[in-house]
Amino acid sequence: MENTNTKKLGKQTVKLNNPPKIVATYSIVGPKEGEGPLGKYFDEVLNDDLYGKESFEKAESEMIYTAITAAINRADLTEEEVDYLFAGDLLNQLTSSSFAARKLNIPFFGLYGACSTMSESLSVASMMMDGGFADYVVAATSSHFSSAERQFRFPLEYGAQRSPLAQWTVTGAGAMLLAKEGDFPEVTYITTGVVKDYGIKDPNNMGAAMAPAAVDTISRHFKDTGREPKFYDAIVTGDLGKVGKEIISKLLLEYGYDIRENYFDCGDMIYDDTVQNTDSGGSGCGCSAVVSCGYFYKKMIRKEIKNMLLVSTGALMSTTSSLQGESIPGIAHAVAIEFNNIEGR
Amino acid sequence: MENTNTKKLGKQTVKLNNPPKIVATYSIVGPKEGEGPLGKYFDEVLNDDLYGKESFEKAESEMIYTAITAAINRADLTEEEVDYLFAGDLLNQLTSSSFAARKLNIPFFGLYGACSTMSESLSVASMMMDGGFADYVVAATSSHFSSAERQFRFPLEYGAQRSPLAQWTVTGAGAMLLAKEGDFPEVTYITTGVVKDYGIKDPNNMGAAMAPAAVDTISRHFKDTGREPKFYDAIVTGDLGKVGKEIISKLLLEYGYDIRENYFDCGDMIYDDTVQNTDSGGSGCGCSAVVSCGYFYKKMIRKEIKNMLLVSTGALMSTTSSLQGESIPGIAHAVAIEFNNIEGR
Repeated sequence: MENTNTKKLGKQTVKLNNPPKIVATYSIVGPKEGEGPLGKYFDEVLNDDLYGKESFEKAESEMIYTAITAAINRADLTEEEVDYLFAGDLLNQLTSSSFAARKLNIPFFGLYGACSTMSESLSVASMMMDGGFADYVVAATSSHFSSAERQFRFPLEYGAQRSPLAQWTVTGAGAMLLAKEGDFPEVTYITTGVVKDYGIKDPNNMGAAMAPAAVDTISRHFKDTGREPKFYDAIVTGDLGKVGKEIISKLLLEYGYDIRENYFDCGDMIYDDTVQNTDSGGSGCGCSAVVSCGYFYKKMIRKEIKNMLLVSTGALMSTTSSLQGESIPGIAHAVAIEFNNIEGR
Repeated sequence: MENTNTKKLGKQTVKLNNPPKIVATYSIVGPKEGEGPLGKYFDEVLNDDLYGKESFEKAESEMIYTAITAAINRADLTEEEVDYLFAGDLLNQLTSSSFAARKLNIPFFGLYGACSTMSESLSVASMMMDGGFADYVVAATSSHFSSAERQFRFPLEYGAQRSPLAQWTVTGAGAMLLAKEGDFPEVTYITTGVVKDYGIKDPNNMGAAMAPAAVDTISRHFKDTGREPKFYDAIVTGDLGKVGKEIISKLLLEYGYDIRENYFDCGDMIYDDTVQNTDSGGSGCGCSAVVSCGYFYKKMIRKEIKNMLLVSTGALMSTTSSLQGESIPGIAHAVAIEFNNIEGR
């Protein structure tokens, strides 16, 4: 049957006819992220990554709760006015998000896309807005170095040696508040990822595992929209890190897209490996969340960039799937955010 | 600010102006579910819950893959024609769904709502359809007794004693295929749940933990839509089991809603405890999935019932949150499914 939907551009991309506006964001990070090169762009930097709680998991949940409520406050709204919360995180059964939602009287949809969750939640939230189901929606996600290490790898107390290809899970949470009106950056196109698996089995090399998905989604976005890489001031992947970043720049060239001049990777930006010992860079849902909510959103509001393509990337394995010898499926979701109401442009 | 959205009815409910049609469903279950009272309603009953795979996790993933592809085939479609897949499951990091999606070239959004995932995925999928973003969408979920036992409780080999309040995780997967056109049951209203936590801490008593969320969502649905319980031929909760079922019938009476005459709980229906030793009944994402895709959908197609309110219910804890002394947050999402094109009505 023929695709009769006018919003659809090709198989994976939709155009939003009523682009939702990102009227507020909030980013909260741990001490290490605050000491990194983007530290001054984050709204809140913790002195202690336990955040006054008795476990790292409870701290992470409190961080995403803070990000959500602060974004709502910044938009001069109350939680009663928010129609939906779309949120997810890395913890088993999404407990950071669910326990934060427990304190909020907001209809809640939990999402899981591993480290792609910022653009996944923003995608679904934006479509809900454009579809006319909501006036205000929050998209949020979080991760925490210490809760992720003990869940996915080893308790920190073991002092296990890190692989040089390993990435450092970002301690951070980010939230975006979407509204119908306002002179703010808006979500214009969404390219939803398909799962790609090229057989990488090393859970310490997630950048390589996620790269094929990023290449697929980004090239699909350009093909579906007819845009060229140079259209965007910033093409921003989530957490491919140094390894994955290099891979996708090369692979996209083979597809005829040269993104090298305006390509950024949140995982590559958030730490300074020369002094912070973060190996291949940052990772985790929180990585692209805080870099997009903190650094890039502010760049847009300050009119230093006018648009970006946010492509959060996720590695969809579990410890069980890795132990059972499975390779690592990857996914990437792309969201075009544009702020064209800039005088003089 | 005033809510200006015409699709919204109150805080939590939306009306679908272009109700998507559920043109096909598929349900696949394990041997125990096949031997239960609803056995003949399931599309496929496995002889062996390993499904020819080398682990229960891989078997579960293959089951959801089968449900998705079979639903697509039944609708005479190819996977290329399906715009989105919304799926999730109980396994850490949603590996059943993600590894199934890996074999499908369909844009994929992973969702997690614990055992509420059938109505969660159906809710989001339906809003995407109504919003004009898709022509065909699949909503799916799965669970597996043996993968859930070893992840959440104990490896089966331990022979741990079960609590009489415990439920039995359903081995099963269900998928629904939504389309714009056709004379099929359609999704008309969606009431999205907020997270409720009344302090239940016993992970063996999930029915009691989820009951407040079910009561909240069901009473909210009636309030928002103006409908009475008797409007529905079947009000169907996911997996409250014997304990939870009794609780919510009583609690809803206090809200002025008597659902006792047309109230069903999938967890209460799927096994015969007198011979199957399933204690408080079935649970798991797969429970409301296979009972809605199998039993209730077929009842509707056969014109034996004309509508239902599907209220899948989720307990949002993890093993870590329980070990850290947290109580169990619950959530419930309600979806009204109606098939009014019945001659003579």
